[in-house]
Amino acid sequence: MSNKKLLVVSAHAADYVWRSGGTIAKYIEGGAEVHVVCLSFGIRGESNDLWKTPGRTYDEVKEIRRGETTKAANILGIQHFELWDQQDYPIRVTEELEDRLVRKIREVRPDIIITHDRFDIMNPDHNDVSAFVYRCAVMSNSNGVRIEGTTATKQMKIFGFEPHQTELSNYKPGSIVDITSVYDKKVAAMECFKAQSHLIEYYKQRAIMRGNHARRLSGNQSYKYAESFMNYYPAVGPELY
Amino acid sequence: MSNKKLLVVSAHAADYVWRSGGTIAKYIEGGAEVHVVCLSFGIRGESNDLWKTPGRTYDEVKEIRRGETTKAANILGIQHFELWDQQDYPIRVTEELEDRLVRKIREVRPDIIITHDRFDIMNPDHNDVSAFVYRCAVMSNSNGVRIEGTTATKQMKIFGFEPHQTELSNYKPGSIVDITSVYDKKVAAMECFKAQSHLIEYYKQRAIMRGNHARRLSGNQSYKYAESFMNYYPAVGPELY
Amino acid sequence: MSNKKLLVVSAHAADYVWRSGGTIAKYIEGGAEVHVVCLSFGIRGESNDLWKTPGRTYDEVKEIRRGETTKAANILGIQHFELWDQQDYPIRVTEELEDRLVRKIREVRPDIIITHDRFDIMNPDHNDVSAFVYRCAVMSNSNGVRIEGTTATKQMKIFGFEPHQTELSNYKPGSIVDITSVYDKKVAAMECFKAQSHLIEYYKQRAIMRGNHARRLSGNQSYKYAESFMNYYPAVGPELY
Amino acid sequence: MSNKKLLVVSAHAADYVWRSGGTIAKYIEGGAEVHVVCLSFGIRGESNDLWKTPGRTYDEVKEIRRGETTKAANILGIQHFELWDQQDYPIRVTEELEDRLVRKIREVRPDIIITHDRFDIMNPDHNDVSAFVYRCAVMSNSNGVRIEGTTATKQMKIFGFEPHQTELSNYKPGSIVDITSVYDKKVAAMECFKAQSHLIEYYKQRAIMRGNHARRLSGNQSYKYAESFMNYYPAVGPELY
Amino acid sequence: MSNKKLLVVSAHAADYVWRSGGTIAKYIEGGAEVHVVCLSFGIRGESNDLWKTPGRTYDEVKEIRRGETTKAANILGIQHFELWDQQDYPIRVTEELEDRLVRKIREVRPDIIITHDRFDIMNPDHNDVSAFVYRCAVMSNSNGVRIEGTTATKQMKIFGFEPHQTELSNYKPGSIVDITSVYDKKVAAMECFKAQSHLIEYYKQRAIMRGNHARRLSGNQSYKYAESFMNYYPAVGPELY
Amino acid sequence: MSNKKLLVVSAHAADYVWRSGGTIAKYIEGGAEVHVVCLSFGIRGESNDLWKTPGRTYDEVKEIRRGETTKAANILGIQHFELWDQQDYPIRVTEELEDRLVRKIREVRPDIIITHDRFDIMNPDHNDVSAFVYRCAVMSNSNGVRIEGTTATKQMKIFGFEPHQTELSNYKPGSIVDITSVYDKKVAAMECFKAQSHLIEYYKQRAIMRGNHARRLSGNQSYKYAESFMNYYPAVGPELY
Repeated sequence: MSNKKLLVVSAHAADYVWRSGGTIAKYIEGGAEVHVVCLSFGIRGESNDLWKTPGRTYDEVKEIRRGETTKAANILGIQHFELWDQQDYPIRVTEELEDRLVRKIREVRPDIIITHDRFDIMNPDHNDVSAFVYRCAVMSNSNGVRIEGTTATKQMKIFGFEPHQTELSNYKPGSIVDITSVYDKKVAAMECFKAQSHLIEYYKQRAIMRGNHARRLSGNQSYKYAESFMNYYPAVGPELY
Repeated sequence: MSNKKLLVVSAHAADYVWRSGGTIAKYIEGGAEVHVVCLSFGIRGESNDLWKTPGRTYDEVKEIRRGETTKAANILGIQHFELWDQQDYPIRVTEELEDRLVRKIREVRPDIIITHDRFDIMNPDHNDVSAFVYRCAVMSNSNGVRIEGTTATKQMKIFGFEPHQTELSNYKPGSIVDITSVYDKKVAAMECFKAQSHLIEYYKQRAIMRGNHARRLSGNQSYKYAESFMNYYPAVGPELY
Repeated sequence: MSNKKLLVVSAHAADYVWRSGGTIAKYIEGGAEVHVVCLSFGIRGESNDLWKTPGRTYDEVKEIRRGETTKAANILGIQHFELWDQQDYPIRVTEELEDRLVRKIREVRPDIIITHDRFDIMNPDHNDVSAFVYRCAVMSNSNGVRIEGTTATKQMKIFGFEPHQTELSNYKPGSIVDITSVYDKKVAAMECFKAQSHLIEYYKQRAIMRGNHARRLSGNQSYKYAESFMNYYPAVGPELY
Repeated sequence: MSNKKLLVVSAHAADYVWRSGGTIAKYIEGGAEVHVVCLSFGIRGESNDLWKTPGRTYDEVKEIRRGETTKAANILGIQHFELWDQQDYPIRVTEELEDRLVRKIREVRPDIIITHDRFDIMNPDHNDVSAFVYRCAVMSNSNGVRIEGTTATKQMKIFGFEPHQTELSNYKPGSIVDITSVYDKKVAAMECFKAQSHLIEYYKQRAIMRGNHARRLSGNQSYKYAESFMNYYPAVGPELY
Repeated sequence: MSNKKLLVVSAHAADYVWRSGGTIAKYIEGGAEVHVVCLSFGIRGESNDLWKTPGRTYDEVKEIRRGETTKAANILGIQHFELWDQQDYPIRVTEELEDRLVRKIREVRPDIIITHDRFDIMNPDHNDVSAFVYRCAVMSNSNGVRIEGTTATKQMKIFGFEPHQTELSNYKPGSIVDITSVYDKKVAAMECFKAQSHLIEYYKQRAIMRGNHARRLSGNQSYKYAESFMNYYPAVGPELY
Repeated sequence: MSNKKLLVVSAHAADYVWRSGGTIAKYIEGGAEVHVVCLSFGIRGESNDLWKTPGRTYDEVKEIRRGETTKAANILGIQHFELWDQQDYPIRVTEELEDRLVRKIREVRPDIIITHDRFDIMNPDHNDVSAFVYRCAVMSNSNGVRIEGTTATKQMKIFGFEPHQTELSNYKPGSIVDITSVYDKKVAAMECFKAQSHLIEYYKQRAIMRGNHARRLSGNQSYKYAESFMNYYPAVGPELY
């Protein structure tokens, strides 16, 4: 992992933590360079508890979310963290945003992109971001897409986050990553998100469940906690994984 | 790969060569121990050219097929090769055959089983063998299935062969293995099968096509020839593959 | 049903009648409050017969369709009926239209939304409206989506209409509603649509076919006529339905 | 619920508890009559921990499993409980077994049958039992299938258990049942199974997860614990569920 | 059509009429030679009305069904009609039955086989017959399957009947055949089946519905009545159909 | 074929050649009138080799591509060839472009439209063009969509190109067309595209593979080379194809 670069594109301020915080920490622990882009703060769609306070404003929510996610990113050890401050619910994909992400991909030159899976039955933003990131990756890889100061990337691996309600979202785990050694960091990062405190327990249990699946599917009893991902593409390489 | 054990279960005498000959040779080259079980000689279902000779008998076909596949197995360097001589078209799965395969799995204790994918639109034997191997693997892994002289295995990975007409068989590649360094061996092994000479060119081109896909999906231009497999289970491990 | 509120969102002027007229009448009969929004008159896409008259204008078609659908809505007893007069073929979903529907959902606060199923192989408007309504429902349910004078709704059930050619549209009935007691009303409402007279017989037979399925699936011989719907979400409650 | 009859067919001695124990208790609490048939004790496939004791015999395992499941059935309040003592791993479906189950269905005359879902990627017994129960239900409903002393049943609802690894088993929840009021009973029943103690925690968390989904999908905040099921058939009735 | 041979394999005595009677008559009208094999009389599974008569015996039902289906076959003009008198509900596929059908296929040498589609949610016999016919066709086409007095066939087209509840059975029409010119014959043939009189109206309406679809999908307004089929294989030929 | 009209809509300058060049030549040979619209030159997405020349400009690439594709169109004998010169990667579908294509469809009045299949995992332009063409065809067929100087078309057949990586793109061949007699023309046309020379060998082998499938699925040994297509709609007509 030590020479790998990851780019994680998160629709809202906390998605990358719930869904890939352990894998991010694992890669960083292994020496990888991790870039995270949060497209939005999730002000409209993922801050329900904060809005229960009477008189709450957009700016207040934004600052709370900014503080929470920055703290979480620090706990995970993320080296490059960007908040692009787009509106959510819905996230509107513009040409300008496409250009910005293509440029970002070309700057980072990731081995792996992690983003949302293609379909989340509860959250159209996730679907839109999935399509957006996938499209930008294709454009980034094409050397005819000329953007000054950049050159085309080569095809990277792409993985999709688990959605909240997996079965209804046609989600199938293609990869399960053992996060046992960094699980404490993931928990600490999750605990930064006061506005979605009900999700902390949910994703703790999810890590235990995926740990159970990891043991069951591999026979490796040392796996206690895990995260799963959808594979956009097959695994390609010198052996069977 | 050097300490890995593979068990390949092939419905007919040549399936393991067309569909995984390169991967077998690659693993052997890497120091793995490979066991192949051919359930049948494919006398009834996969020896069409041989039957064009007037007066041909089952025994003649069997001996020709035995010679061809033994030669191919030697070329690939397979260390443990067994011909179980079941009838094909159809292959009848009996309790005795189940017991035999469960015992075999427990003796070999494979890290990886390779067999047919779940559905082949042209070949019901392949479907039956897929279900049979999968069932036996589950039984082998359960320590309540008591067979004298054996102990339960731990969960192994299972991969499925490409069927002949992939799209109509709902086949999706989950893993693509680079076989460039052993491609010549695969070709030499395929050329042993005189009764299915039309398939040699077919699977040469298939290796080129999967090589193209491997390059396209990985950006690695050194992949010239490849084989693809369906994943029965997700990849589980310390990172994303 | 007596305290239930339904919101039906129909792409064109007659969709709600063909596909849910019986269920609407049934709920009204049971004391429910039903709101119907027709996004368009279906001037361009669903008035083929009207356009056969030489010299016909958009305004004429609109007025004929307005008359027909208003009459049908009255027959069904719909309490709240709105014609939003968007262009069809295609229906263009704008931010303004999204805001309008989110506001509508928050005003009505429906227990159940009925709209088009996700995919209709013959009619892209239906697909677009399905995605549009689904997105607006998600936004309506989020209390961070601030719209003056409204408050967030709680998650409602959502059901999808049968498309015209069900199997080619990947449609699967999740719910079948007995409409025997109100079938006459549905027929009377359908007969208002002179421009689509060929559909009246089609949907009469469809009601008989779904009645047959309802009897067959339930053993209840009193079901003569029925309508079927796709379930966007599982049934959730105190028992199994 | 008070006049409903349920028949639950469980492949192994504990499946009905992990996967439907709450729903069973809920129906019994509501006055329903519940019949459970355990086809096997799960001696070979679901007693891994018991087999870790050196010198263990089939008969010992059987008696332990009999004791555990009988105790669990009592805790849930099941009125009619039968252990059919078939071999498992694999469960062999014979004509005799088919006749026995058809007869059972006709004696019970259930409104609802609950059994395994169609596909469980980890457990071929579950698949075989699903097909077996479905086939017997069809035969039971046909009045031309003459079995002395019985008469044909009418079409009942059929629901499928959650498999252990849902997404890989193509499982989609069609119904989610609130089990909050009986959750303690389910936990007590689960705790009878010493041989599968690792599953107790797993299914506790599963109940919490499905409770979360139940709240999220219904907006009803009183749902704390739930169980989900696959629907073999659509919901049919006088309204939308 | 004039030199075509069709083999229709029907699970029960009337399936071929409800589901392909029009197409059979159309081909015969066009000069084709049609062979029909009814595997069973449907005594147990498809004679519900007959069993309502007190004291009814298997032999009586058989003779009634034999009379009905023979009369229907005559009306359709079927040249070769065989009743194999297997038990139904379930139809047990034996090696002997396989040999008999392979031999039949080799004798008839059909250009087209029509039988049941792969999955019928209401009728496991249909699923079993689909798998059985498909397997026998593959064996018939293999010249290594030696049966005295026969030679291998070449690959024929295979089409699947519409099941009763199409959407729940994952049925997709791949081919729609105009039966307008022979519709009266189909109706007359259907009217022979007194034991399933409720199905006559059902399949009349089905023919009207498929006629509507045929017009809608082709723009050809002369199509009044039609039957649809699932395609086991793609259409192959000199042009696009 | 002699009175048929085809409209082929190609996202980029060469798609129609790789994916349907043989079928186009076959129809022309048979007397059909073929119209091809290339929406873009593929400057950004499908001219990778050209961009390897330092200092290359968009205009240079465009002129090279224009020359190549015009030459290929001439070799195939295409009677009506249009280059619409839209940007690619991404192709932006505007209302103006929709109007233009609807008008084009109404002018050509094709019996068959060939365009991209619904999903190409490697190329979002193909997906967008598929949706665009499908939508325009629906609008063209509706007589309420009033465009001066045009009248509504009747429903035409629509077929989808093979994507580059078929299985990952959920592609299923619905039709396989024998192109043996015109294969040389297809090769000559492909050889015009210097910027994508690696694809020439790829699509030669693809034609051989589909030829193999065509023989295998039809038993017709004269098929040497073929192209496959997805069917948007079922085949409808007087017989089974």
